[in-house]
Amino acid sequence: MRNTYEYKHMNSNRGKIYIVGIGPGWPGHMTPRALAAIGDADVIVGYTTYVELIKGVIGGKPVLATTMTQETKRCSTAIDEAEKGQKVAVISSGDPGVYAMAGLVLELLSRKYGRDTGHNTGADTGITPEYEMPEVEIVPGVPAVCAAASLLGAPLMHDFAAISLSDRLTPWDLIEKRLHAAASSDFVIALYNPRSKGRVTHAEKARNIIAQYRDGKTPTGIVRSAMREDEAVILTTLAGMLDHEIDMQTIVIVGNSTSYRWGNWLITPRGYRLESERGTCADDFGGKKS
Amino acid sequence: MRNTYEYKHMNSNRGKIYIVGIGPGWPGHMTPRALAAIGDADVIVGYTTYVELIKGVIGGKPVLATTMTQETKRCSTAIDEAEKGQKVAVISSGDPGVYAMAGLVLELLSRKYGRDTGHNTGADTGITPEYEMPEVEIVPGVPAVCAAASLLGAPLMHDFAAISLSDRLTPWDLIEKRLHAAASSDFVIALYNPRSKGRVTHAEKARNIIAQYRDGKTPTGIVRSAMREDEAVILTTLAGMLDHEIDMQTIVIVGNSTSYRWGNWLITPRGYRLESERGTCADDFGGKKS
Repeated sequence: MRNTYEYKHMNSNRGKIYIVGIGPGWPGHMTPRALAAIGDADVIVGYTTYVELIKGVIGGKPVLATTMTQETKRCSTAIDEAEKGQKVAVISSGDPGVYAMAGLVLELLSRKYGRDTGHNTGADTGITPEYEMPEVEIVPGVPAVCAAASLLGAPLMHDFAAISLSDRLTPWDLIEKRLHAAASSDFVIALYNPRSKGRVTHAEKARNIIAQYRDGKTPTGIVRSAMREDEAVILTTLAGMLDHEIDMQTIVIVGNSTSYRWGNWLITPRGYRLESERGTCADDFGGKKS
Repeated sequence: MRNTYEYKHMNSNRGKIYIVGIGPGWPGHMTPRALAAIGDADVIVGYTTYVELIKGVIGGKPVLATTMTQETKRCSTAIDEAEKGQKVAVISSGDPGVYAMAGLVLELLSRKYGRDTGHNTGADTGITPEYEMPEVEIVPGVPAVCAAASLLGAPLMHDFAAISLSDRLTPWDLIEKRLHAAASSDFVIALYNPRSKGRVTHAEKARNIIAQYRDGKTPTGIVRSAMREDEAVILTTLAGMLDHEIDMQTIVIVGNSTSYRWGNWLITPRGYRLESERGTCADDFGGKKS
């Protein structure tokens, strides 16, 4: 395996950007590698709320951009600092690659340092150009959807689709198309960014689209601020999901046609076939030896 | 928040089952909560390969069922031990709720201790019946798909669908339907269980379905054994994906129509709108303040 401590370490004079997933919020769910990256950093860049969650870990290190709400500016600041030779930890909640900071940092770097071997050529050179740009390491974390699922039971045991209901950067038509596609082919559906002040009807529209294909009794979980002080876990149904508070810190997970509720657990079976149909494969996940 | 150390702790005489996600494999990506759960357990239950990955953490604790390949039997063993009053840690790679052990343990418990308030009634009582059954805690972990994504760059920055190509418990027709649905609505697609000895043509069929909707030059990442000794990271294209070794320890991530390759990174932009169209929302993810 790549030794992550030396990962992509090609020029010791360059700065480095760690893009660090801190997990859902409680430090018990933050990995040692995330801790080590923060420990190694000279400067921390992050949104105030998430910096607060891990302030015990950050200690006395300088924290930049805490009052900013603009992600692009925050990432630019991180790049600027790294170009001075600093080691910078960009803090992201959950996993930094799921609707979060990893893509934005890489987008900005690719614009600044130039694209190569991109989508148009599809080249498969396998070579990292030796840019004189900051080193980048992405430290994965427990994503919000898995934290939410763990509190609900096991809703993601079968194929699932993650869909953000934010139409700020994505046409609403495409979001609707994805909701139809996922609902009609029986994916478990995880809704990110289900509602905000400016988008109060999106959750309702999404619910109504899914309900065209799925029973109103389909078990549905609503998890707000998983593993944080204000955590709330609600088990309801597709028909009932709008009766509960849903905000931007909330993830909604709608079960598939086989999902069922048992006590306080939401369970999606690992397959569609009954034991009697499985024959000798009854005990096999089909590959992953979990 | 629920204090996870006291979580669902209702009867101190009952046994307890921790269903523990150890993350991709390297202990640096295993959370402190997972470590604590293993530390608290009297008995460890897990597949040999994954027990080996964390043997330093397990120490001298008894390990059961190491030679089994049958997941159901392993989960039954865990339940049996817990019913004797033991604390049992069931080890799962990645996140235990994503194609892994959490659902199976809950499925078996629900069959054994009886269903209530299930899918048919859709009741929303919010009450956990006081079963005389083992306590259960699901400890989330970094899922394989996020570990793979972090090595590739940021492929999951927009809506994505996770699809297992195993048809042991799921009709192949439904898998094909999902591939069509996800590909036609421009989801980033993560393929789990893409190939095994008995299923050599599934990856090819999946590739061909996706290629009906997506350019052959679409950047595609193949990651085997992320964060393990035999890790391999390949950046290729949809057209080229079958030229590389794909096995059951592999996750394949196919970009969406906007994904691009830059050096050794696979990047999916966080939205479809150009900066110029975004106006004052240019810096807003649309909710998640990452």
